[in-house]
Amino acid sequence: MVERYALEPLKSLWTLKAQYERWLEVELAVVEAYEEFGIAPKGTAQKIRERAQIDVDDILRTEAVVDHDVIAFVKSVTKNMGDEARFFHYGLTSSDVVDTATSLALKSATEEILCSCKSLANVLYEKAIRYKDLPTIGRTHGVHAEPTSFGLKFLSWYAELLRDIERLERAKEEISVGKLSGAVGNYANIDPKIERRALEKLGLKPTPVATQVIPRDYIAHLLSVFALIAGLIERIAIEIRHLQRTEVLEAMEPFKEGQRGSSAMPHKKNPILCERLTGMARLMRSYAQVAFENMALWHERDISHSSAERYILPDATMTIYYMLEKTRYLIESLKVFEEKVRNNLDLTKGLIYSQRILLALVDKGMSREEAYTLVQSIALECWESGESFRERVMQNEKVKTLLTREELETLFEPSYYLRNVDAIYERFKHDPKSENQKGN
Amino acid sequence: MVERYALEPLKSLWTLKAQYERWLEVELAVVEAYEEFGIAPKGTAQKIRERAQIDVDDILRTEAVVDHDVIAFVKSVTKNMGDEARFFHYGLTSSDVVDTATSLALKSATEEILCSCKSLANVLYEKAIRYKDLPTIGRTHGVHAEPTSFGLKFLSWYAELLRDIERLERAKEEISVGKLSGAVGNYANIDPKIERRALEKLGLKPTPVATQVIPRDYIAHLLSVFALIAGLIERIAIEIRHLQRTEVLEAMEPFKEGQRGSSAMPHKKNPILCERLTGMARLMRSYAQVAFENMALWHERDISHSSAERYILPDATMTIYYMLEKTRYLIESLKVFEEKVRNNLDLTKGLIYSQRILLALVDKGMSREEAYTLVQSIALECWESGESFRERVMQNEKVKTLLTREELETLFEPSYYLRNVDAIYERFKHDPKSENQKGN
Amino acid sequence: MVERYALEPLKSLWTLKAQYERWLEVELAVVEAYEEFGIAPKGTAQKIRERAQIDVDDILRTEAVVDHDVIAFVKSVTKNMGDEARFFHYGLTSSDVVDTATSLALKSATEEILCSCKSLANVLYEKAIRYKDLPTIGRTHGVHAEPTSFGLKFLSWYAELLRDIERLERAKEEISVGKLSGAVGNYANIDPKIERRALEKLGLKPTPVATQVIPRDYIAHLLSVFALIAGLIERIAIEIRHLQRTEVLEAMEPFKEGQRGSSAMPHKKNPILCERLTGMARLMRSYAQVAFENMALWHERDISHSSAERYILPDATMTIYYMLEKTRYLIESLKVFEEKVRNNLDLTKGLIYSQRILLALVDKGMSREEAYTLVQSIALECWESGESFRERVMQNEKVKTLLTREELETLFEPSYYLRNVDAIYERFKHDPKSENQKGN
Amino acid sequence: MVERYALEPLKSLWTLKAQYERWLEVELAVVEAYEEFGIAPKGTAQKIRERAQIDVDDILRTEAVVDHDVIAFVKSVTKNMGDEARFFHYGLTSSDVVDTATSLALKSATEEILCSCKSLANVLYEKAIRYKDLPTIGRTHGVHAEPTSFGLKFLSWYAELLRDIERLERAKEEISVGKLSGAVGNYANIDPKIERRALEKLGLKPTPVATQVIPRDYIAHLLSVFALIAGLIERIAIEIRHLQRTEVLEAMEPFKEGQRGSSAMPHKKNPILCERLTGMARLMRSYAQVAFENMALWHERDISHSSAERYILPDATMTIYYMLEKTRYLIESLKVFEEKVRNNLDLTKGLIYSQRILLALVDKGMSREEAYTLVQSIALECWESGESFRERVMQNEKVKTLLTREELETLFEPSYYLRNVDAIYERFKHDPKSENQKGN
Repeated sequence: MVERYALEPLKSLWTLKAQYERWLEVELAVVEAYEEFGIAPKGTAQKIRERAQIDVDDILRTEAVVDHDVIAFVKSVTKNMGDEARFFHYGLTSSDVVDTATSLALKSATEEILCSCKSLANVLYEKAIRYKDLPTIGRTHGVHAEPTSFGLKFLSWYAELLRDIERLERAKEEISVGKLSGAVGNYANIDPKIERRALEKLGLKPTPVATQVIPRDYIAHLLSVFALIAGLIERIAIEIRHLQRTEVLEAMEPFKEGQRGSSAMPHKKNPILCERLTGMARLMRSYAQVAFENMALWHERDISHSSAERYILPDATMTIYYMLEKTRYLIESLKVFEEKVRNNLDLTKGLIYSQRILLALVDKGMSREEAYTLVQSIALECWESGESFRERVMQNEKVKTLLTREELETLFEPSYYLRNVDAIYERFKHDPKSENQKGN
Repeated sequence: MVERYALEPLKSLWTLKAQYERWLEVELAVVEAYEEFGIAPKGTAQKIRERAQIDVDDILRTEAVVDHDVIAFVKSVTKNMGDEARFFHYGLTSSDVVDTATSLALKSATEEILCSCKSLANVLYEKAIRYKDLPTIGRTHGVHAEPTSFGLKFLSWYAELLRDIERLERAKEEISVGKLSGAVGNYANIDPKIERRALEKLGLKPTPVATQVIPRDYIAHLLSVFALIAGLIERIAIEIRHLQRTEVLEAMEPFKEGQRGSSAMPHKKNPILCERLTGMARLMRSYAQVAFENMALWHERDISHSSAERYILPDATMTIYYMLEKTRYLIESLKVFEEKVRNNLDLTKGLIYSQRILLALVDKGMSREEAYTLVQSIALECWESGESFRERVMQNEKVKTLLTREELETLFEPSYYLRNVDAIYERFKHDPKSENQKGN
Repeated sequence: MVERYALEPLKSLWTLKAQYERWLEVELAVVEAYEEFGIAPKGTAQKIRERAQIDVDDILRTEAVVDHDVIAFVKSVTKNMGDEARFFHYGLTSSDVVDTATSLALKSATEEILCSCKSLANVLYEKAIRYKDLPTIGRTHGVHAEPTSFGLKFLSWYAELLRDIERLERAKEEISVGKLSGAVGNYANIDPKIERRALEKLGLKPTPVATQVIPRDYIAHLLSVFALIAGLIERIAIEIRHLQRTEVLEAMEPFKEGQRGSSAMPHKKNPILCERLTGMARLMRSYAQVAFENMALWHERDISHSSAERYILPDATMTIYYMLEKTRYLIESLKVFEEKVRNNLDLTKGLIYSQRILLALVDKGMSREEAYTLVQSIALECWESGESFRERVMQNEKVKTLLTREELETLFEPSYYLRNVDAIYERFKHDPKSENQKGN
Repeated sequence: MVERYALEPLKSLWTLKAQYERWLEVELAVVEAYEEFGIAPKGTAQKIRERAQIDVDDILRTEAVVDHDVIAFVKSVTKNMGDEARFFHYGLTSSDVVDTATSLALKSATEEILCSCKSLANVLYEKAIRYKDLPTIGRTHGVHAEPTSFGLKFLSWYAELLRDIERLERAKEEISVGKLSGAVGNYANIDPKIERRALEKLGLKPTPVATQVIPRDYIAHLLSVFALIAGLIERIAIEIRHLQRTEVLEAMEPFKEGQRGSSAMPHKKNPILCERLTGMARLMRSYAQVAFENMALWHERDISHSSAERYILPDATMTIYYMLEKTRYLIESLKVFEEKVRNNLDLTKGLIYSQRILLALVDKGMSREEAYTLVQSIALECWESGESFRERVMQNEKVKTLLTREELETLFEPSYYLRNVDAIYERFKHDPKSENQKGN
């Protein structure tokens, strides 16, 4: 965990205390189920709940002796429990408690992350609407291509985020499983009914077939969806870093009152948040990699995944949550310099309209090859000389035989390029909270 | 591509010829759509289809000059096309063709891979049924734990594969998108209706918002699902490698007539197929990693993903397909030495039943702590001395005060541990082809 | 950072306090250099050293306003510094301080890690010597192959670790660079002489060409060497996990007094340390991956590496250090069951000597093909039937025409396979502390 | 292998034929050594060399039966060899041949790669010299910072490449090992002297301790160095992609005669080579990842590394070679638009000189805090209003009390920032072929 990137409520989720509390919650759910099915006497769960005390230091001291975290937990918690202690952890193996509790933590974390995704989606949609009619230069390969809508940038992220939300919903559904099936997962000492009832109380379902542990594909799947979300955020961050370049300066990430860009250069406003997010995306990919490697455990389980998960589960959930929260803030507070956006559109003096000229010539009957050669030759000359492509085209004899001045003038209007943008927006319903909005 | 691991029909999918054929298919679908909407004259598509010839060498020669693969393709294919050439590639940008065609390839590949998954699922389910009642020692940390069902190994893989099939179905659905929206994805020179109609002919849907390209999260998602499947196959392969160890030898991968295990040691039968699959899982993870990195393109696209995809798309699809086909063969032909399975169950002379003794003592009123200490001390002594735990327990005075000989004898029966196995199997419907079979 | 895996002295290295102290150390070295070169008045450094106070909370409060960690540090530290504050941070850019200090931290960390490597090397060498003459079955593909020396396992790890030590020495040498060259690395406001002198005081050299930052290949190189060391430790851990399998049980990792293997099964002694190390190796690989991605910064620097490094630099150094320390303990305390090692050698009833029989027959004039076919056929029969290969060979008529009983008996002696082992050991000098010991 | 990226001589190195030829080379070296030591009769090697024929198809047909590549090779090659066949592959295990031959391939490949590195280093050094005195704006976070030398970009890459060359030299030295020590690496059936002599003939040294195979850390180390080189190339490629942005346009990658940038937009010149290299860097990182995972083999070896290496060894060596060759071409042919470089320097109307003003004020006695606040406030105003910072500073009353107009004018000269650049260049000897040129 990196303190400065640990936001609540995710941070509290991963304290040792919170972990022990989840373990206790699982143990209690099992006792309650035993009670319901008449295996434990009425009132057992209530008494245990009253007497069970989590003393983090005591548990750790015990663990230092027994070298086993769950045994230490059980020993410490049942210390003053009296007779009812017999039903505490009864029929369970350590992983029943640990893995079910991990699912609880991941489910909670994923719910927060989903919430944050949806807030971000709302903000992206708002900006998409706001900048729908602002023409901007579309850039491919970093080179000016053709005009497009500034809003489409946001809409494209929004559409990708909707896919991610859908993926994450499923991954959350998947991860909402527990297992209370004993040492090798065959219910030797616990009835499947107890598992089902106890998990139900916890908001989980049984994993269909467990070994000693819940298979690790669930976690690997979840972390690979996080990596996808991180990839989108990286895409957003890199776009804004580009837009904030001194030469481009079409947008700028928020700069706080009192903030200083550099210890040396007072004029600098740097996209440090976007850069931070970019670096974090690398981490998120690496967590997925570790989770993939964690899948192939030996026989009915080995515990190699455990040390790795102690790092990556808290770090992956906290980091993606931080990324989402900061991205929402970033988009919300993003400064867009509309005038600069418009100015940049004219930077190439009309060259970006070359494709339109080309197609207009083809429409008038010129072969595609000939039109391409003609337009490219004018374009390349202007590119070298700095002359205005617009003017050179208007004066070209071949062009003039096919196109009138009026026709030519309309060919250099950016609005033309945005005429079908509405059709793209119509693919999305008006309530951005509803996710099933893919092209219909 | 590694020749020896390239299986049909996947291999043919990725030849240069097949790629150009897909490009042509896309171009033709667009022309047909133009024709339907009255933009191209009736009969245009038919004429183009008749005259379009794919000459791989000619395309490559042209590419050597123009340094652009799609331009070379269009030039070469339209060479003798006559007047209709005007409608060929009309209004399109290269990526419209390339990306839509890539989706076609990935969709086809994924269909084959899904098919292979389902065949494997069937075989796993059959083996799960076949070995349901064979007791085997469950091993955690590589150490004997408690008896379980040999069939559960297969059922556990089967259950995980069902999850993967579900994930893959969704990823296939997702990847079945094309884009025919021009240079920056805003339909400046092509009507969204043309895109919808042309894609429909190809069995695809429009991606809701494209830039110049289809966003790369689709591919990253698909390849991360492949990595999950590879993780399962690695899990299976490692299990069999363990079972085939000389000291364990409960199962063996098929050994072909005439096959030689070693140039030096004639007695050796090595799990080389499982080892090969293990190595391949590492590759599959690495492809996902590259695909994640490919997501954050600059502005309306950069082409950095392209070189990487030329490697990973063919390799990832061919390798996972090879892995699945070989795993099915492996499971189908797997030799299981049932006698050895039973013998290994007794290797610890009863130690594996310690948990049952422990719980029986607790049931009879001993505190969990006391029972644990007692059972562990006997167990540790036997472990050191090699004595039979079963016999030592039967002779222990404290034990005898609580448990009769008859009671004790039933505690050392493996069947006890399998009594709830049926309940696990009942979670799965009888038709293994239907995938929605998770715990109910 | 994962608390339970954070060992001293590495842990203290990465506290916020320790970081600020390193920053101060760098700032002071620069002031001292200024003083030496007559730029600052005599006594400046001394006065600054006396008045500079690190108040972690105050720095963090300041950072909350200025959103820049170094500016906050300078502001807070110089608060009560008086006139000399003018020379504090004079001519420097933030990264001069941050990157030089990071090199100090990495250098210190690497020194500890190297130390730990060397201790481990000593222990491995001792064990290699100790078990040199213990014959054991060599296993390839998990299948019994030919006898070898148990000590060679350790010697093989030792030899690999010597290579890693050499790689790490170089990486440490490399990382021992600082940069004090200003905002874009061109010494606009600081003389290269000041840099050289200040870095000398800190035990560092100037990086030959910096941008605003030290190029990130240094760190990527260091972390890839860590990943190599982790790969070796994983190799060791997996070997021991195999040897501790119930069916093999030739060795066991230390089991502490009071330790409990399982909450359910008192007889279990699990190789949990080795499993933990296995999981950690996955992390170490993932850190290298992030570090590789951190290399390609924009122009004269972007700060995307920074967030990622806040995680991976502490975690990578602390984790590899933990792995090394625990591996040394593991090897030191490893229990080897020599009798079991010898018993396992006979598990195949002589089959492992088949290659020797084969070669003896070839020596006596049989063609390799014929000998191979003969030996393999006997071997395969024994493998199926469980008969003794040794006896079947001794009774085979074809064999008997070429080899006498006495000759045959010597062919089944494991000592034969160890006759050249001394020659391998002789490749290593007797002082394991000296690293340049590769085959000569 | 991706055909279009496979360059000679690397491509020929990885054909099946070349592989078999290397195997034969290894087998022959062993026979020659046997002959020298009197184990094989004089003339054996010569006769074998004459009669050994590599028939790729025959070997593959044989492999289809025996399912073992080396056995198939030996069978096929010795088919018509007569009596001498007895000494062919005598005392060897398959991996002796395969691994030693792999080292030969990797050594050859690395030599070519090193050569290509050195050519690139020369070209980088030339460009560094050529543009040493061209002032350019240094950019941090993508934002204009302070002037620097355009040549320093190249010198920085050059310096990093020198480090990579040094790393690669060592990795090549390391990888130049073979092993001819039999089934489990203990020389049971071959004398270490034979190994030493045979390897000497091949230009290799024995690996100090082998198992059945050469430990995989050698390959992992080599591939991690390749990933470092790829990281540098990515850094170069991203710089040029930035410089070629329409808004920046200070440099452009070569555009071939006849090349077309886009099927739609004739004016476009895209940095497609740089983008291609960027994508390839992702692949190179992924190969290192696989190689790290390949290290921890079971016991005396498992063969899981083999399938993975069939992909990554050819692909990694061919791809990094392609990257280096193309980068050299790129740098050699790079177009630099010096006028644009100079124009961009003035884009902020003097803001980039703010740090100098700040320091000048401090030199004149203003406190750093006060100076910072003053300069930042002017800077921020100009940033908002578009006014000239230079003019506003010159008119500021506080400034004027401390600095004369003449003093101020010199503060706005870029040459100031380059005054120490020569000192950086002096760190490098004049012969770029010699690599030990780090800061002295």
